[in-house]
Amino acid sequence: MPLIVHKYGGTSMGSTERIRNVAKRVAKWARAGHQMVVVPSAMSGETNRLLALAKELAPPKQTDALCRELDMLAATGEQASSALLAIALQAEGMESVSYAGWQVPILTNSAYTKARIESIDDRKIRGDLAEGKIVIVTGFQGVDDDGHITTLGRGGSDTSAVAVAAAMQADECLIYTDVDGVYTTDPRVVPEARRLATVSFEEMLEMASLGSKVLQIRSVEFAGKYRVPLRVLSSFTPWDIDIQEEARSGTLITFEEDEKMERAVVSGIAFNRDEAKISILGVPDRPGIAYNILGAVADANIEVDVIIQNISKDGKTDFSFTVHRNEYARTMDVLKTKVLPALGTDRLEGDTRICKVSIVGIGMRSHVGIASKMFRALSEEGINIQMISTSEIKTSVVIDEKYMELAVRALHRAFDLEQPSS
Amino acid sequence: MPLIVHKYGGTSMGSTERIRNVAKRVAKWARAGHQMVVVPSAMSGETNRLLALAKELAPPKQTDALCRELDMLAATGEQASSALLAIALQAEGMESVSYAGWQVPILTNSAYTKARIESIDDRKIRGDLAEGKIVIVTGFQGVDDDGHITTLGRGGSDTSAVAVAAAMQADECLIYTDVDGVYTTDPRVVPEARRLATVSFEEMLEMASLGSKVLQIRSVEFAGKYRVPLRVLSSFTPWDIDIQEEARSGTLITFEEDEKMERAVVSGIAFNRDEAKISILGVPDRPGIAYNILGAVADANIEVDVIIQNISKDGKTDFSFTVHRNEYARTMDVLKTKVLPALGTDRLEGDTRICKVSIVGIGMRSHVGIASKMFRALSEEGINIQMISTSEIKTSVVIDEKYMELAVRALHRAFDLEQPSS
Repeated sequence: MPLIVHKYGGTSMGSTERIRNVAKRVAKWARAGHQMVVVPSAMSGETNRLLALAKELAPPKQTDALCRELDMLAATGEQASSALLAIALQAEGMESVSYAGWQVPILTNSAYTKARIESIDDRKIRGDLAEGKIVIVTGFQGVDDDGHITTLGRGGSDTSAVAVAAAMQADECLIYTDVDGVYTTDPRVVPEARRLATVSFEEMLEMASLGSKVLQIRSVEFAGKYRVPLRVLSSFTPWDIDIQEEARSGTLITFEEDEKMERAVVSGIAFNRDEAKISILGVPDRPGIAYNILGAVADANIEVDVIIQNISKDGKTDFSFTVHRNEYARTMDVLKTKVLPALGTDRLEGDTRICKVSIVGIGMRSHVGIASKMFRALSEEGINIQMISTSEIKTSVVIDEKYMELAVRALHRAFDLEQPSS
Repeated sequence: MPLIVHKYGGTSMGSTERIRNVAKRVAKWARAGHQMVVVPSAMSGETNRLLALAKELAPPKQTDALCRELDMLAATGEQASSALLAIALQAEGMESVSYAGWQVPILTNSAYTKARIESIDDRKIRGDLAEGKIVIVTGFQGVDDDGHITTLGRGGSDTSAVAVAAAMQADECLIYTDVDGVYTTDPRVVPEARRLATVSFEEMLEMASLGSKVLQIRSVEFAGKYRVPLRVLSSFTPWDIDIQEEARSGTLITFEEDEKMERAVVSGIAFNRDEAKISILGVPDRPGIAYNILGAVADANIEVDVIIQNISKDGKTDFSFTVHRNEYARTMDVLKTKVLPALGTDRLEGDTRICKVSIVGIGMRSHVGIASKMFRALSEEGINIQMISTSEIKTSVVIDEKYMELAVRALHRAFDLEQPSS
């Protein structure tokens, strides 16, 4: 009997009405001859409600002891929604049982609020499945070796579902969400955006890291590592839709080389305005300068994305990089106090009004001229490129944020993304 | 260093403002040189909110599998409030950690929704106390031998607190609630009602079982069994009240024989209108008749309180008893279908408009004439007594519910309860 893992997001679990719909859908899959494991998120808004209470009470300093309690608190959201789903399934006449992360157990490291899954013991789940039960496993949470509750960070339920699917070698992991798949780009920006029937794991990884919010990036990494067949699809289709049709809907994340060969060169356009650009001008061009600058930033636990060092002129160079906008002020502070004095320059510039636009495609590996086609499309719209960063399967540019939508639409058109790939 | 257990009810934990007040109070006790273990209830309304969601989704039949999920769901309320209190204590500069029932662990049997505590492992708590931490233990919940979450039933947090205090041989268990102690009777009915500085464990047990809502009856049983010094006091005094004054406030539940000797004969008046009376008239007076009637009622899992069988006349007798009003219709049904046909009578009468009023006092053991003083006081008010039931330290009467307040006030006066006992 095929083993299927379903994951339902917070919106899909947002009310008793919606939980009942999830139960009916899961019951349909079980009756059609599948062993079912379901991983629900907390009801939408619940995690935020709990953390808002905590914020009112918390001390200013974020200690390990505080993070432990935040996890203890936040984990209740998924425990409650899981129990409610088990109850709704029983009302549908299905035998059903829910487990908190520690009951499975899903073992993680002890990094509260951003823990990583280390192992999953599937014996209890297998035992229940063998008895004909539907098993609900709380998303987002686990337990460390000392029995403390941990959570996996925002979107962690995706990772829970993929990890359970990997541990159990499930036939497929279906991520039900409020969108019906992965698109060539955000349809709110480009109405012609097209849903992709399949996308490669590596493309999905780039899109997730570039700001596409469909899947948490760690869940994609996990799926890649353990080759979990993963499908993103909508929980807002009627629950009694034909199961064959449902099983083919959404977007499948694939690992097969031969499928990749058929692909369009560029699969999608990702973008975000989460970053800020920082430049240090007139830096002496000598070995170790990048380390001098970014070492201090890394020591402050600030993540750097795009990095550019310009060609040297008169023994001086300009050094630019981007950080998350939330870290902009702190980064400027670190540079002013710890870096500039040693560099012998005080020419520091910052810009928070930028955005990053990226083209992603597994076919870029074997095609030349893709980046230049991107740059031409942008130049035809009069958009100035401030920074460029490339990897094997993506090219990103940093531009003025006011041109973001214009750039995304121009690139979507330039790469014929509104047309189904052959 | 004395070890103190505090328990805070849902109203005391009802908002972040109130949780902060609880944290300040607990911090005050810790700074005054006590080892502190705190057992909070869920924020007021939270358990009802969760169970209302479950009710919307639940199947009609209450199975064990359903009750398991209800416990999984309801237990989240205390886990969240415990984490919030730990966070608020950290903001007060105190080291603090919270544990769910399973983390302690508090082991219970597997009777979901009404589990009983079997053992508490206090090693983890002792370890934290030794390190100077304040330990928060979730009320209301535990875990069974197979790792399923259980809850202890309504008011179960009182029992959790007393059980933790017993396991740790705490110096005192303080139950903070929204009333400031145990009264001679409900002050809403008798404005002259007086707070008792002390009450014996046995009196408290009778009062709890007779409808006084101050403490869950099982927590009183637990305190009695393990001789846990228990104090009921208000969480609505200012948190910075002098700690010596606070430590003497409220009502102390005592176990000392010599203290009892000083007591007034009657300590308090309990009452409730939760019951209904059922009479079967013209029952053949032969051995086994009570079993014939009440056996069928017990088989239907209905609890019977007061039972009366009148003197026989012409070989026939009348048989009356009371049940909870919620069970009235079901009891009548059981009698009509399963009992009356075999008895050869169809004279069944029921009355839901009754109440039970009781006088409770440890001194009744050694004093005669207390019951007759009660009956005289009621007769002077023209109140007809329908049923009488007595135990060593209480006398209860069933009367028309419209006379309830009148009866309580008359008895309060007759036994001089508005006067402090010598």
